[in-house]
Amino acid sequence: MRNLGIGIVGGGYMGKAHAVALQAVGAVFDTALRPVCEMICTTTEEGAKEKARALGFKRSTAAWRTLVEDPVVEAIVIASPQAFHRDIALAAFERGKPVFCEKPLGAGLEDSRVMVAAAERSGCANMTGFNYIRTPASQLARQIIASGEVGEVTYFRGEHTEDFLSDPEAPASWRTQGRANGTMGDLAPHMINGALALMGPIESLMADIETVHGSRPDSGGSPETVTNDDHGQFLCRFENGAMGMLYFSRIATGRKMGYAYEVFGTKGALRFDQEDQNALWLYKGDAAGDRQGYTKILTGAEHPDYVHFCLGPGHGTGYQDQIIIEARDFLRAIETGDAVWPTFRDGMEVNRVIAAAWASQEERRWVSLNSI
Amino acid sequence: MRNLGIGIVGGGYMGKAHAVALQAVGAVFDTALRPVCEMICTTTEEGAKEKARALGFKRSTAAWRTLVEDPVVEAIVIASPQAFHRDIALAAFERGKPVFCEKPLGAGLEDSRVMVAAAERSGCANMTGFNYIRTPASQLARQIIASGEVGEVTYFRGEHTEDFLSDPEAPASWRTQGRANGTMGDLAPHMINGALALMGPIESLMADIETVHGSRPDSGGSPETVTNDDHGQFLCRFENGAMGMLYFSRIATGRKMGYAYEVFGTKGALRFDQEDQNALWLYKGDAAGDRQGYTKILTGAEHPDYVHFCLGPGHGTGYQDQIIIEARDFLRAIETGDAVWPTFRDGMEVNRVIAAAWASQEERRWVSLNSI
Amino acid sequence: MRNLGIGIVGGGYMGKAHAVALQAVGAVFDTALRPVCEMICTTTEEGAKEKARALGFKRSTAAWRTLVEDPVVEAIVIASPQAFHRDIALAAFERGKPVFCEKPLGAGLEDSRVMVAAAERSGCANMTGFNYIRTPASQLARQIIASGEVGEVTYFRGEHTEDFLSDPEAPASWRTQGRANGTMGDLAPHMINGALALMGPIESLMADIETVHGSRPDSGGSPETVTNDDHGQFLCRFENGAMGMLYFSRIATGRKMGYAYEVFGTKGALRFDQEDQNALWLYKGDAAGDRQGYTKILTGAEHPDYVHFCLGPGHGTGYQDQIIIEARDFLRAIETGDAVWPTFRDGMEVNRVIAAAWASQEERRWVSLNSI
Amino acid sequence: MRNLGIGIVGGGYMGKAHAVALQAVGAVFDTALRPVCEMICTTTEEGAKEKARALGFKRSTAAWRTLVEDPVVEAIVIASPQAFHRDIALAAFERGKPVFCEKPLGAGLEDSRVMVAAAERSGCANMTGFNYIRTPASQLARQIIASGEVGEVTYFRGEHTEDFLSDPEAPASWRTQGRANGTMGDLAPHMINGALALMGPIESLMADIETVHGSRPDSGGSPETVTNDDHGQFLCRFENGAMGMLYFSRIATGRKMGYAYEVFGTKGALRFDQEDQNALWLYKGDAAGDRQGYTKILTGAEHPDYVHFCLGPGHGTGYQDQIIIEARDFLRAIETGDAVWPTFRDGMEVNRVIAAAWASQEERRWVSLNSI
Ligand SMILES: NC(=O)C1=CN([C@@H]2O[C@H](COP(=O)(O)OP(=O)(O)OC[C@H]3O[C@@H](n4cnc5c(N)ncnc54)[C@H](O)[C@@H]3O)[C@@H](O)[C@H]2O)C=CC1
Ligand SMILES: NC(=O)C1=CN([C@@H]2O[C@H](COP(=O)(O)OP(=O)(O)OC[C@H]3O[C@@H](n4cnc5c(N)ncnc54)[C@H](O)[C@@H]3O)[C@@H](O)[C@H]2O)C=CC1
Ligand SMILES: NC(=O)C1=CN([C@@H]2O[C@H](COP(=O)(O)OP(=O)(O)OC[C@H]3O[C@@H](n4cnc5c(N)ncnc54)[C@H](O)[C@@H]3O)[C@@H](O)[C@H]2O)C=CC1
Ligand SMILES: NC(=O)C1=CN([C@@H]2O[C@H](COP(=O)(O)OP(=O)(O)OC[C@H]3O[C@@H](n4cnc5c(N)ncnc54)[C@H](O)[C@@H]3O)[C@@H](O)[C@H]2O)C=CC1
Repeated sequence: MRNLGIGIVGGGYMGKAHAVALQAVGAVFDTALRPVCEMICTTTEEGAKEKARALGFKRSTAAWRTLVEDPVVEAIVIASPQAFHRDIALAAFERGKPVFCEKPLGAGLEDSRVMVAAAERSGCANMTGFNYIRTPASQLARQIIASGEVGEVTYFRGEHTEDFLSDPEAPASWRTQGRANGTMGDLAPHMINGALALMGPIESLMADIETVHGSRPDSGGSPETVTNDDHGQFLCRFENGAMGMLYFSRIATGRKMGYAYEVFGTKGALRFDQEDQNALWLYKGDAAGDRQGYTKILTGAEHPDYVHFCLGPGHGTGYQDQIIIEARDFLRAIETGDAVWPTFRDGMEVNRVIAAAWASQEERRWVSLNSI
Repeated sequence: MRNLGIGIVGGGYMGKAHAVALQAVGAVFDTALRPVCEMICTTTEEGAKEKARALGFKRSTAAWRTLVEDPVVEAIVIASPQAFHRDIALAAFERGKPVFCEKPLGAGLEDSRVMVAAAERSGCANMTGFNYIRTPASQLARQIIASGEVGEVTYFRGEHTEDFLSDPEAPASWRTQGRANGTMGDLAPHMINGALALMGPIESLMADIETVHGSRPDSGGSPETVTNDDHGQFLCRFENGAMGMLYFSRIATGRKMGYAYEVFGTKGALRFDQEDQNALWLYKGDAAGDRQGYTKILTGAEHPDYVHFCLGPGHGTGYQDQIIIEARDFLRAIETGDAVWPTFRDGMEVNRVIAAAWASQEERRWVSLNSI
Repeated sequence: MRNLGIGIVGGGYMGKAHAVALQAVGAVFDTALRPVCEMICTTTEEGAKEKARALGFKRSTAAWRTLVEDPVVEAIVIASPQAFHRDIALAAFERGKPVFCEKPLGAGLEDSRVMVAAAERSGCANMTGFNYIRTPASQLARQIIASGEVGEVTYFRGEHTEDFLSDPEAPASWRTQGRANGTMGDLAPHMINGALALMGPIESLMADIETVHGSRPDSGGSPETVTNDDHGQFLCRFENGAMGMLYFSRIATGRKMGYAYEVFGTKGALRFDQEDQNALWLYKGDAAGDRQGYTKILTGAEHPDYVHFCLGPGHGTGYQDQIIIEARDFLRAIETGDAVWPTFRDGMEVNRVIAAAWASQEERRWVSLNSI
Repeated sequence: MRNLGIGIVGGGYMGKAHAVALQAVGAVFDTALRPVCEMICTTTEEGAKEKARALGFKRSTAAWRTLVEDPVVEAIVIASPQAFHRDIALAAFERGKPVFCEKPLGAGLEDSRVMVAAAERSGCANMTGFNYIRTPASQLARQIIASGEVGEVTYFRGEHTEDFLSDPEAPASWRTQGRANGTMGDLAPHMINGALALMGPIESLMADIETVHGSRPDSGGSPETVTNDDHGQFLCRFENGAMGMLYFSRIATGRKMGYAYEVFGTKGALRFDQEDQNALWLYKGDAAGDRQGYTKILTGAEHPDYVHFCLGPGHGTGYQDQIIIEARDFLRAIETGDAVWPTFRDGMEVNRVIAAAWASQEERRWVSLNSI
């Protein structure tokens, strides 16, 4: 057991989530490495100082290079907007420091390719922040599919749907500008990662992506053009032969955290919806005909990672706990030197799928992933 | 109030359902026309006689022409396999007799075009048997969308999924032979009709259709080639501009009556699943932020057609009641001379969508409906 | 197969439901006896005539004795208010005619005792109208408990909750007058019958019954005293040793058809709610620890009576179908001469429980059923 | 902002949960007091040392007095079995140190009375560990009821049901010995506290409590007598006039965290089940008749305490987060000097209800709370 100095770049929503996680993870998982919150970086000195105080860091800076170069900072968590992911990661790897980078990996496919190359060249631990797949329920789903318990999967449907822009009068903002901040850039990565984790690689896809509300009021109330997508979907085929379909939306009225999937296999089926993250619905085809049905499994001590948070099923884990699980995995990667899924390469794979979807949208045709 | 002599062709699953419905509909809806079960036709004289006895018909025949031509038979219900829909309907219209035809309208697009022409030439009442859209809940969904209560619809997802062939060892049969009996031919029509009813016409689509289990054991256990599709899906755009997606499957393990849809609008959302046919889930975007959520509306006396079956919500209607509602509508069409939705033309529209899906599947491209 | 002339007393909600059921039951179940709707009786000649026309009866009367005595009327369905159940039934049995009587059996325990005596003396078929226990799901629940599949039952909770009087300003009416029309008199019988069917006899109980809204506006808006109960509950012990609890309410805001129960056994558990009448939730204690959970069984062809209405699970039966099942059972009782559950005696047992609850309420103590 | 030295007595399930919470709470809530994990006490020196290492405490001891008396330890968390709650708390108050005590407060009513007296005499902050009522959903339920949004409550049903002893062959242990470890002693307190929080004081109750499985195999397989209760229930009346019912069980097969309640009011209704802790079901009686139904509200940023853990609804909080909320409240009580609900006195009120239930069970009669 030894301490490990951590620096976080970004002190917003995810910066805080990681700060909390790093302070809790040691006691939760009895980790060999115990993170120490050394330094936090946000855009202003003042702001950073305040965040350091509030979130429990020793020092602060407004210059991420200072943080990356600080000798006491042994590992970096990137929780700043995607535009900065690449440069920070490259600088960290140059200094031989492990990096955990929030999703998406970089601001697009090119960024992520560069980041993967740098990560692998450096030999440092590297992880991408796909937290939703880390609920005990989704980990269990992965196990069930991988073990063949539902047979050969014939169909997968996934979605990541939210509704924060479903009102056409919701104002324009940075979220409505630039492809990396649109639905495909910002919301799709989680579920694409989920689909890859559960099903394996996608072979080809056929997408339809759209900006529904082309203009939104700016802060003064005048119309401002929206330059990114509101929702998108694609048909796909996985390399394992299964048919698939994914849908992503920020205008899915009523959906709050619609990270959800449905899997049909030759021997069974699975259903999951993040809005009830402690339940996995399993159907077993071999049940007696008059006792068949979906079983609502409440995650519990016998399922992955759960028991570290609470004993019995129904007690339940939440969003913050996913980030704690991520922290455990990142520490483990640093400690052991073994790659821990999802690495930067896994993050890049997600970006390849997104790029394929855009190619398909633009050319109105099926696109093979190996052309991307 | 007067009696109306009815002849049913087919004494299987749907023949029985219509027989029951015709005997119940008068008392349920106090209809002006009171159907009398005059004659039933099945493939053998013996079988038809036995069905007449069991189902309460006065006479029977194994020759559908005899039934169609019988002077006491004033209206025809076609509940035989799709291969026979066309000829029976044409003969009936020739004699000026109204026809209710089970879905799908004919064995394909060509059949249905001929049937529509004959129906419209004859001026006789004509209806296609899309019963699922007639639940009080789905009628309510239509009203809600049409009234603008959920705003402008931006996305529609529909499915008709069942699992009767999800086991790869399930034996081959007539169901696994011939496009008309495959998933697109046999299961898809209900939900395509539902989509058209809820959303209006489809403008273009992009399909992917597949036979997953290419061979199944015949009665002797030897492999028999399957000649039709196990599942299929398409992306689409509706004429109203909304994006859509539909999925159809007979191998959707765990799904028993997966006639289900989800609608996102600018002001609200709807969810329905036939497996809980007495509930419609409605989300209203204008609810206060801390009281938002999907409301589970139990259909009741204030919703379409419900009160004729029972008084309070939660008492519930079932499958047979849908057929009774159809019977009421067919009688009304005959009585008033006004077309009652869905007419043969509406049935044909469904077949056009299916044909477009096959065209898209074969050419791997978006297909515009007005090219079909 | 032969015809059987039926007379119904009452042409309101249940009179219509039975009329429809009698017209449908032959075709649904291929019954040996085929009911013929001979005569209907309501309070006025005019009204009865109109009901006969609407519901498809040959003749009508405003004098129930005329109906009971009519030689063509071979069996009687009593669907008039409880005040009249006794006299009509006695007259029918005197003439050796089978009687189906709507719940509750008579207007109280005394009535029902007299009715049972008359029924048993006559040797005629006799049934009480507890339809809810006849859903395929609740029949399945009975089988599961009886077979020991959930082990020894240790706890039962039942409720029949509705909300038609939850608004304190809802007007006074006959429903708010007289014990027989209150919650214990009118709503409780269905679930008490359900509890007895699922669990066997109650040994003792401890009740609390209350009129919450003691006064309601009469038709002119002036306050009118309410003379019966709004809700009531009791703790109980069943003869099989299990602990139990039942609750009944007409002011259970939000509950529409809250006929619901929950059963805990040493090896499993069951849950049912009439508001989703096509599903039974079963928990099996012997499932592997990491696959445990409630399974939502959709009723289907392998469950009691379902296949006569539709083939696959998820198609669903509804309220009217329960009445058709009752009609089949009544016809079977007449045909075979064998008692078909629930007989008048079973109806009387329900009244005994209600009487015990009132005794307990009045004396504020546990009451043993064998003292009633 | 200043540091506060904390000592925890107990390093088991709850000891760990509080350790994690204390390390996370500062960053989560930006608390004025920042807890420092100074010392942990368990039964052996060795064990305590190991726990200190694993859970991140500076020092350890096997003597709780050492911990209580340590000058750096400024506040105490008691997470040892109930038998020790009293003495530790009294010692702490003697030294003027605030105490957070896990539920139940002491091993029975007498203990808790002594503890309340000591707490109030000392003037120190004191809290009882009822965490379930602290979910955002249950806090929202409290607000809704208190504000009158569901009108005057007429009925409350609560349960705390689990199934860890539903198998009759589950072995005997300390859990099956002694009233304080039985269902009424150990499981009931959470929901009794919930009922009091939501509904206000109970006026009288009528209980039935039972040991179902009187003997269980000991570690060697020989039968050992069970000396406490498996399940219990009571009817009650609240001081606000509402009727109520509570049920507690450790043999409720299939129930994992059945902390659940249902509330009927004159204007609306509420439903909650801890097994889906991020949803509260609300029914509003004033909705239009054809739009009525329960709304599933997903807790989110506009609900109590939620936003400190995550932004959007559906992200979800879990068990550990409840303990973090408790920690915030305990720190606030220390900081401000104001009592924070639930104090020791609130914990004692729960014990009074339990004592009344036992009195009712023994005397088989209604017991008034003011006689206890
Ligand atoms: N895994 C998940 O569930 C989520 C992941 N994210 C991802 O996390 C990242 C951060 O998102 P949020 O925390 O929501 O954003 P935010 O806007 O709440 O916070 C961004 C933070 O980065 C800082 N920052 C911006 N530019 C910087 C720079 N050049 N140098 C140093 N600091 C800088 C800001 O001062 C701020 O503290 C994004 O990549 C986003 O995609 C966001 C939300 C959820
Ligand atoms: N609306 C709905 O929910 C459903 C509709 N259907 C449709 O109803 C129709 C009938 O299907 P099922 O009742 O399931 O089939 P089935 O196989 O149960 O019954 C078919 C009946 O048609 C009779 N028949 C066959 N060929 C005939 C001929 N040449 N002349 C006279 N009678 C003939 C058979 O003897 C049999 O009585 C089909 O078009 C099917 O697509 C089927 C099931 C459900
Ligand atoms: N099983 C179930 O789900 C239900 C059972 N019931 C029971 O059915 C019975 C009837 O209730 P509803 O149909 O709801 O009542 P309703 O008020 O709708 O109809 C009562 C009918 O009885 C007739 N009637 C009244 N007094 C009569 C008399 N002296 N002679 C002949 N006819 C007379 C009335 O004209 C009317 O047609 C009651 O015993 C009630 O408890 C009612 C509703 C549901
Ligand atoms: N709020 C909640 O959700 C829950 C509360 N509890 C309550 O928390 C308390 C502890 O329960 P658990 O953590 O489940 O028990 P546990 O058996 O997991 O841990 C008890 C701990 O107390 C220590 N201990 C025992 N006697 C001691 C003594 N005399 N001096 C110092 N340490 C001693 C043991 O070494 C052990 O570390 C109980 O009062 C229980 O009722 C327990 C579980 C859940």
